[in-house]
Amino acid sequence: MAAGLQPDIELGASLFDALSGATRQGRGIVRDSYGAGEQAGHDIARGAAQRMGLEIGIDALGNLSMTLPGRDRAAPRIVMGSHLDSVPQGGNFDGAAGVVAGLSVLSGMRRAGYVPACDLTVMGIRAEESAWFDIAYLGSGGAFGLLDPACLTIARSDNGRSLEATLRERGFDPEAIRERRRLLDPAGIRAYLELHIEQGPTLVARGLPAAVVTGIRGCKRFRNARCVGEYAHSGAVDRPYRRDAVAATVALLHQMEGVWLGELDAGADLVVTSGELCTDAALHGPSKIAGETRFVLDIRSLSHETMEAFGAAARSAAARISEAYRVRIDLGATSDSPPAVMDARLRSRLLRLLDQPFEMASGAGHDAAVFAKVGIPCGMIFVRNDHGSHNPDEALSMDDFAVGARALLGLLTDFPI
Amino acid sequence: MAAGLQPDIELGASLFDALSGATRQGRGIVRDSYGAGEQAGHDIARGAAQRMGLEIGIDALGNLSMTLPGRDRAAPRIVMGSHLDSVPQGGNFDGAAGVVAGLSVLSGMRRAGYVPACDLTVMGIRAEESAWFDIAYLGSGGAFGLLDPACLTIARSDNGRSLEATLRERGFDPEAIRERRRLLDPAGIRAYLELHIEQGPTLVARGLPAAVVTGIRGCKRFRNARCVGEYAHSGAVDRPYRRDAVAATVALLHQMEGVWLGELDAGADLVVTSGELCTDAALHGPSKIAGETRFVLDIRSLSHETMEAFGAAARSAAARISEAYRVRIDLGATSDSPPAVMDARLRSRLLRLLDQPFEMASGAGHDAAVFAKVGIPCGMIFVRNDHGSHNPDEALSMDDFAVGARALLGLLTDFPI
Repeated sequence: MAAGLQPDIELGASLFDALSGATRQGRGIVRDSYGAGEQAGHDIARGAAQRMGLEIGIDALGNLSMTLPGRDRAAPRIVMGSHLDSVPQGGNFDGAAGVVAGLSVLSGMRRAGYVPACDLTVMGIRAEESAWFDIAYLGSGGAFGLLDPACLTIARSDNGRSLEATLRERGFDPEAIRERRRLLDPAGIRAYLELHIEQGPTLVARGLPAAVVTGIRGCKRFRNARCVGEYAHSGAVDRPYRRDAVAATVALLHQMEGVWLGELDAGADLVVTSGELCTDAALHGPSKIAGETRFVLDIRSLSHETMEAFGAAARSAAARISEAYRVRIDLGATSDSPPAVMDARLRSRLLRLLDQPFEMASGAGHDAAVFAKVGIPCGMIFVRNDHGSHNPDEALSMDDFAVGARALLGLLTDFPI
Repeated sequence: MAAGLQPDIELGASLFDALSGATRQGRGIVRDSYGAGEQAGHDIARGAAQRMGLEIGIDALGNLSMTLPGRDRAAPRIVMGSHLDSVPQGGNFDGAAGVVAGLSVLSGMRRAGYVPACDLTVMGIRAEESAWFDIAYLGSGGAFGLLDPACLTIARSDNGRSLEATLRERGFDPEAIRERRRLLDPAGIRAYLELHIEQGPTLVARGLPAAVVTGIRGCKRFRNARCVGEYAHSGAVDRPYRRDAVAATVALLHQMEGVWLGELDAGADLVVTSGELCTDAALHGPSKIAGETRFVLDIRSLSHETMEAFGAAARSAAARISEAYRVRIDLGATSDSPPAVMDARLRSRLLRLLDQPFEMASGAGHDAAVFAKVGIPCGMIFVRNDHGSHNPDEALSMDDFAVGARALLGLLTDFPI
């Protein structure tokens, strides 16, 4: 890194303060997708970019681009960024940290009079969270023309207004989605770099300030799994005559935990969760055998093959257990999102830029998954964050933020060819 | 059995028809405890008893006694019977079959001019079901002065009126409960015999018309068990960092199923059920690790020791699994009802009266449990019933009813000394 070239952490800190001041409601942060909170975030980022003289662009779907011109303006550019929306009563750092890091890096370059080889663009991406409209990656997916136009009818979870009506109210153009218009050309983007807070406890547990992300786990989810047995008296029906939906569901989930442990022992990347599991409150009872359960089985891995194999194992276990317990386990359809692998060269370069090199998978989705999907080499940096994300207690120290921002700056000033 | 002495099955069939006609509402039967439906049942039984010249008695709590005088009127009598209430939208046979069987037997004796050695009393017992007032065995428990007077404040589940007010409205005397007054003297009762439909599928599955009951299972129930972990992102938190309440609950229930199977292999009488199991619908989510479950663990056995041992095993498994899964499983307090063993001599005599001798435990509770509790020798006969009980589809054939009634009559005419 050129001497004296450092990310502008003071700017970063002031931007986080401004975001918190403008979008905190009670304890938590509310930056509603395509709403007033998200717009306040965009206004703050844009104001900072204008003050440092960056070129400003806003596309048909409201994504904000803030560009520091490079020496070769015709060369493909490097994009940094993340999203500026939050879940309801979320934290100040999920998403915003990636935009603020990009602006801190460009401000540092400006201050040092550094001119990059190619254009460097920080994007404030719209509507990554699915909490408001029940679809993730609206902004980045829309920018690459990847959205199903049917999404325009999705109603916002709080006010019921459609995505189409909401876009029009904000002065954006839903026709871009309807026409699957490409607002960003993948060929014009050399790489996409995203800094994000870690949303799990790994870095806190390991005492590390930052990590390089190996990839974003895909997800195979049995969203509407169901086990149908037969309600009966808990005392009057002996074991051979039962069709106990809870017992069968327990047997299935226990068996799948065993498969999971086997995969972990074999070195696979895999997390498996049943986060919703319920008997029917209208029909169950303390002295009844349960005739039905509904549950979710959420399977995530960096490897498509691992997820497919686990899903197939779940289906065959469900069939075996249905027979053994005389019930019908119907796992139902899966919703699938593929894993996104980060670029190997960017990963190894980022790793060398960390004093304490550490790599880990991202279990949550990020806009980088969309950039990777259209073939753009992607790199991601996680910074340590306590208390998980999507809640008011997200905690990112400026020291850890600086570690991540320095790695980002280091990568940009010594970009792999 | 004396030649020509047979239970009066025609009377039985006509009483079942009358009960169905008077107390059916829509598909199901409604004989509400201390309400109009139960009273209609008592009126039908009493009318039949008067027509055959039985002595009628009604105690302070409305229990109906219908007595055929014996040769020695000073000798302790034998009581037959069951309850005449039903659950809401119940079936026509649960409870009523025991009263109707007793009347069929006494009618058969009257027809044949048979005079028994001692008085034979058929009881139409009040309010056995806990569906209306949240307490079981009101009628039989009250008859022996066993009820906690606090029960007088219990509100009826449908109309909210207290037991005390309801008793007064029907012309009965709540002071009998307040004073724990004994309306029946155990020393004056030589035996209590109850015919009841089987409430499980065993007799249907085995193709048998009737069975002798070995005992009524007691129940140890963890009604308010709870597992507290930590909500977190299903993708972002790897296995070592999880506090997954569902995974821990599944591990516990699976382990207890293993203990259950071991007990069955060792010949123990035991049924184990978790009929309610729920994550928190206000906080769970398809991409969240669950931070809490609530569940019930219902343990039933003829053996007090078996239930105690299983309960203790559950508590120690909960402690081990809490540690292994970094959660807190709190099984909470148990509610306990003791098992009631049927009289060995009555069991063996009844068994010899069946063409296809078969014995089984009763998983559900019956008034016989109360008679056994005060030291009266009890015998119970189960008759085959399809589709379980407590629903409109209860199905008892008159042929199977006759098998049970004949065994009852056979026992009375050749009573063990």
